[in-house]
Amino acid sequence: MVNTILVAVPLLGVLALIFMFIKRAGVSKLDPGNELMQRIGKNIYDGAMAFLKAEYKVLAIFVAVVAVILAVTADPGTSSIMIAVAFVLGAICSALAGFIGMDVATKANIRTTQAARTSLGKALGVAFDGGSVMGLGVVGLGLLGLGSLFLLFKGQFAGDILITDATTAEAAQTAMLRVITVITGFSFGASSIALFARVGGGIYTKAADVGADLVGKVEAGIPEDHPLNPATIADNVGDNVGDVAGMGADLFESYVGSIIGTMVIGAAFMVMPAFYETDLNGLNGVLLPLVVAGIGIIASIIGTFFVRVKEGGDPQKALNTGELIAAVIMLIGTFFAVTTLMPDTWSAVNSNGDLTTYTDMGVFYAILLGLVAGLGIGYITEFYTGTGTKPVQGIVDQSLTGAATNLIAGLAVGMRSTAYPILVLCTAIIGSYYFAGLYGIGIAAVGMLANTGIQLAIDAYGPICDNAGGIAEMAGLPKEVRERTDKLDAVGNTTAAIGKGFAIGSAALTALVLFAAFMQTARITSIDVANPFVMAGLFLGAMLPFLFSAFSMEAVGRAANDMIQEVRRQFNEIPELKAALAMMKRAGHDTTKYSPADLAIFNAADGKADYEKCVEISTQASIREMVMPGLIAVLAPVVVGFAPQLFGAEPAMGAQMLGGLLAGVTSAGVMMAIFQSNAGGAWDNAKKMFEEGASVQGTIYHKGSEPHKAAVVGDTVGDPFKDTSGPSLNILLKLMAVVSLVIAPFLV
Amino acid sequence: MVNTILVAVPLLGVLALIFMFIKRAGVSKLDPGNELMQRIGKNIYDGAMAFLKAEYKVLAIFVAVVAVILAVTADPGTSSIMIAVAFVLGAICSALAGFIGMDVATKANIRTTQAARTSLGKALGVAFDGGSVMGLGVVGLGLLGLGSLFLLFKGQFAGDILITDATTAEAAQTAMLRVITVITGFSFGASSIALFARVGGGIYTKAADVGADLVGKVEAGIPEDHPLNPATIADNVGDNVGDVAGMGADLFESYVGSIIGTMVIGAAFMVMPAFYETDLNGLNGVLLPLVVAGIGIIASIIGTFFVRVKEGGDPQKALNTGELIAAVIMLIGTFFAVTTLMPDTWSAVNSNGDLTTYTDMGVFYAILLGLVAGLGIGYITEFYTGTGTKPVQGIVDQSLTGAATNLIAGLAVGMRSTAYPILVLCTAIIGSYYFAGLYGIGIAAVGMLANTGIQLAIDAYGPICDNAGGIAEMAGLPKEVRERTDKLDAVGNTTAAIGKGFAIGSAALTALVLFAAFMQTARITSIDVANPFVMAGLFLGAMLPFLFSAFSMEAVGRAANDMIQEVRRQFNEIPELKAALAMMKRAGHDTTKYSPADLAIFNAADGKADYEKCVEISTQASIREMVMPGLIAVLAPVVVGFAPQLFGAEPAMGAQMLGGLLAGVTSAGVMMAIFQSNAGGAWDNAKKMFEEGASVQGTIYHKGSEPHKAAVVGDTVGDPFKDTSGPSLNILLKLMAVVSLVIAPFLV
Repeated sequence: MVNTILVAVPLLGVLALIFMFIKRAGVSKLDPGNELMQRIGKNIYDGAMAFLKAEYKVLAIFVAVVAVILAVTADPGTSSIMIAVAFVLGAICSALAGFIGMDVATKANIRTTQAARTSLGKALGVAFDGGSVMGLGVVGLGLLGLGSLFLLFKGQFAGDILITDATTAEAAQTAMLRVITVITGFSFGASSIALFARVGGGIYTKAADVGADLVGKVEAGIPEDHPLNPATIADNVGDNVGDVAGMGADLFESYVGSIIGTMVIGAAFMVMPAFYETDLNGLNGVLLPLVVAGIGIIASIIGTFFVRVKEGGDPQKALNTGELIAAVIMLIGTFFAVTTLMPDTWSAVNSNGDLTTYTDMGVFYAILLGLVAGLGIGYITEFYTGTGTKPVQGIVDQSLTGAATNLIAGLAVGMRSTAYPILVLCTAIIGSYYFAGLYGIGIAAVGMLANTGIQLAIDAYGPICDNAGGIAEMAGLPKEVRERTDKLDAVGNTTAAIGKGFAIGSAALTALVLFAAFMQTARITSIDVANPFVMAGLFLGAMLPFLFSAFSMEAVGRAANDMIQEVRRQFNEIPELKAALAMMKRAGHDTTKYSPADLAIFNAADGKADYEKCVEISTQASIREMVMPGLIAVLAPVVVGFAPQLFGAEPAMGAQMLGGLLAGVTSAGVMMAIFQSNAGGAWDNAKKMFEEGASVQGTIYHKGSEPHKAAVVGDTVGDPFKDTSGPSLNILLKLMAVVSLVIAPFLV
Repeated sequence: MVNTILVAVPLLGVLALIFMFIKRAGVSKLDPGNELMQRIGKNIYDGAMAFLKAEYKVLAIFVAVVAVILAVTADPGTSSIMIAVAFVLGAICSALAGFIGMDVATKANIRTTQAARTSLGKALGVAFDGGSVMGLGVVGLGLLGLGSLFLLFKGQFAGDILITDATTAEAAQTAMLRVITVITGFSFGASSIALFARVGGGIYTKAADVGADLVGKVEAGIPEDHPLNPATIADNVGDNVGDVAGMGADLFESYVGSIIGTMVIGAAFMVMPAFYETDLNGLNGVLLPLVVAGIGIIASIIGTFFVRVKEGGDPQKALNTGELIAAVIMLIGTFFAVTTLMPDTWSAVNSNGDLTTYTDMGVFYAILLGLVAGLGIGYITEFYTGTGTKPVQGIVDQSLTGAATNLIAGLAVGMRSTAYPILVLCTAIIGSYYFAGLYGIGIAAVGMLANTGIQLAIDAYGPICDNAGGIAEMAGLPKEVRERTDKLDAVGNTTAAIGKGFAIGSAALTALVLFAAFMQTARITSIDVANPFVMAGLFLGAMLPFLFSAFSMEAVGRAANDMIQEVRRQFNEIPELKAALAMMKRAGHDTTKYSPADLAIFNAADGKADYEKCVEISTQASIREMVMPGLIAVLAPVVVGFAPQLFGAEPAMGAQMLGGLLAGVTSAGVMMAIFQSNAGGAWDNAKKMFEEGASVQGTIYHKGSEPHKAAVVGDTVGDPFKDTSGPSLNILLKLMAVVSLVIAPFLV
């Protein structure tokens, strides 16, 4: 059976890719709308590709340099070259997933707009199919990459593992750990790309947003989604860069990291008689995460077919149905997999040193717990950031006394919102450990992430609808079209909030799994916080999320400034833009809204705004500003891992201090991620509530009122919080854990 | 020699109190100024006393309840009644220190104003003498309380300790640990009062500040320091409540906690032949922290006499001179104490399990490191928050584009400012451990805090000068008086920033010392973060500072709202106030500044503004809002300590998980404290820079300009950050560590 599974796993990855191509072809052949829509769409598409091209150019150099370093220095016990190969493959898969997602998202957007001209159901279908391409691409490439590497390296380093007694079991375990150590490179590759996609993408999107907003809206008096606004394309590209490519790379990293981490932990089962006596090779603990991921792919594919809505129906309900069906299928499949692959009971020493009996049902419960925890954290996020919820209404109320009280309220909501997700996370940690030991924590993370296919489809659906709305506005389509896209977009905001919570929760659990894998690889059994090196590591680790957030926020400030200068320059120096603006004003048009009546004016100035220059500025700034945070994330574990030796301590103390660093960065990083994401989300929706007319103490306040202006300040502060510094921390946690795992063999 | 030291320690506490009374008498007999000044002064004094009375009433109940619980349940191995007695004494000493500080500060303020009418030097002298009363009161009561309890309980539980061999040494150690466990109650008492003083004080001062500012300044158009403003007295009282009583209780807690924690760690030396063979009783490791604190008292007293300035001189230099002289005396004295009390060399097993040789000079270096680290963190704080420094100028620059960019810049500065203090702290932890093991970390904390006498004198000097300036304004004194108080006040801002950094650094180190003492008492030798319970504890711990900050910020919002309603009511309902305001406006007076020309109008309305009601509202709100954060701080360690037993784990696992909780709350708490304090401080000074005319890109912007208004928003957001939620975290860390230490015997 082992060989069947080994071959089936990459094939399930291929299956996901096949469905991805089918969905992609389906989206591509749809009507892209009228000429203006196509022109706008092409500009966004070109901008997105320009960003990816520039980013991948830098990435290629980075990947090549790190690959050479890895090939030369990586664990001498394994084949260094192979780690480098796995690293490059991981980077390529992640980059490819990002490309696929961006490509389809920037095609699906205009087609969603066009579909919205006829029906809500069709528009939902296009947007969700676009999201599905991203989701299936991520899990397909992830499982195909992991599965093939495992198949390849297992043959190379471990051969046919034949375990007959305790001695052969130990030899097989050593060989298997060598195999998985090599595959760690794949995870490291994925993390590196994620860093660029999340941090760089976050800087990109906010620089463009601020530029389009501040100069376009405030100074020139035209809306951000206006063809005369030079930063408008960069802004629309930014939505895709941040929420599609960034989120995709983030979940790709979690998906791959949680599987690999659990494989490392599962290798512990290889030497247990309960495993090797009842199952072929005793490999089942290592294989289970791959199998669960494979089941998740099937569940996700089936789930996507249930996302349907009729005119006047509720898109949210359609998405929920798809997700629920996928979850049920995944659980049923997993139940059979667990009971087939795991022994009924086995005994192992838990970390208190007691011999404990575990059962296969315990493993299933851990998976269930992981799945529920992931959704739970998502829904808590929605409670703290959703339109009209009590916390957001509180921010709306406080906007009455000005920007300062709006800000204090938002900061307090963000800080307070850390409590419940952490309680859920702690319950998942303790519960899954109670059910299935350390392996339980790993498999819970896999369970949380197994349905990434459909989860990410729902996440990516949001920015596609957002773009579709912007295009409807720019193309001057009739009101009912905008109403349909708005309806889809409103649901997109909810799914985005849930997706953000899910991303943080899964990042935390993945970091913990990698942490456990790191300890196993570094051969340390405990990390004692009472040890001063570990305590110092803990403090340093807890400090890094703050420093990292400061860097990314300041980076947004600088990048936005570059963009502001450029947009101002274009308005001043391009005669056609100047003339068009002047004409619109002379004609008495309301320049604060785009109106189809301006089409002639727009056509006269068409092609004159230098969109590419703005895209380039955002791209360059994001790449330039990524260097420092990236270096911190990669170098901090290396420095801390080797520092204690300078104080005369043994190498193992480096592993301990590094463990402290990881504990600090994970705990403080999760809090800062939740705090910043939720504060930003809550401010955003408080502002939106005013735009729809918010009621405070019986009075309705609208757009343009003083409280609305206060809420706009909060939203602007929240922007880098929720789109740059907050989500970047997900990557920081995981990347530092992966780097630690890679250097672990040197700290033994 | 032991008996000499045992008696000398409380006597040095008495010496500090004698000098305190001398300084207090000196301040009291000074000229309190003209009738108006005296009337204003009396209102502030009465308000301060009203606050203390209300607070102490609630505290008395709290202390009585906890004392009864302690008496009934505390460690059955020791005398529970005695722990309760120590607890009550600790609470009384801390409360008494707060009373002394508030009493003298509200007397020194008008006398500083009066002295400023003649000379800068005299005014500095009065303000600093006022601060010295607080400083000497804190260290005097601390050492007297600790020393007497030690003398008393040692006699009761340990008798004359006569160590002759290993067996008698172990028996003596057990007896001694019992003695120190009882004294822990003193620290718990001090922490409880500190919670009320810091959290309650923080809420009080901001509620009053916002009320005076928003309604008085913005709505009625009169300055906050105006006799017609009903909240003005509450506002002035608030400065004292927060910065005098709050800071005093905070440092009192650190002072006492670090000494007791080090005594617990020092008891480990009792069973080492190197100690009991070369010194009487082997008690020296336990006595050294008391001796160092005693030397610090002498050094502080001498140092206070060197704080002098001539007209036109630099008050900062005078304060630095006093501090430097005290530091040098402390180091010289400590050098002799360490070389006398400690053996030349001894060997002990360090936490890596290796036998290491330590020397007496190593202990001295640890003390030196602690002293330098405390000052270092203070000066780093000044760099990030001081007027005209690069980070603050950056916030000023960003104010040009509005409140949002000002806020993002301030948040980034606060987050970034965590890096260097943490590097200093980690260096102190690893360095002092390298020099003298775990005891090194403890004695470093004692070294940092030994000069609390003069350090706190400098801290308390600030709010006295601040008050003095306000009184000069309200009493309409000539311009040169205000110039002198402004000069003193400017220095006060710097010392306040340094003091805040020092308070955080010392809180962190004290929490670590108490943490080590907790482990010793709970008899656990390691806290393994790889254990899921510990990991969950770490996450919960890291979450608490966020939740605690959210609670205190929201509390400020609610309390400020109460105050706003009351001030509005008074302006509407009190005819004399209405009439006076109308008269001032009719007379064409500039109501945005207080002018002596309004004296007649003021006299007509005198006594009509209901100051007491505003003081009462702030007081009631602060007490009401303290309940929730207080319960969290006290109950979280208890719940976490006993929770694992519910999951079938052994009691020791509770101690481990509690260890995780403490590690999490200390690491994340220190970051959040630094982040919030420094962001708030930086925003405050950015605003002040505009008020003095700030230069941005070659243009000077003044008070009332758009960038200044943006900076005011930042300052308002920063107020609860730096004066409520930030400093409250110092208490959270220490209180949770002390509670853990108290319940530790139950978790064995």
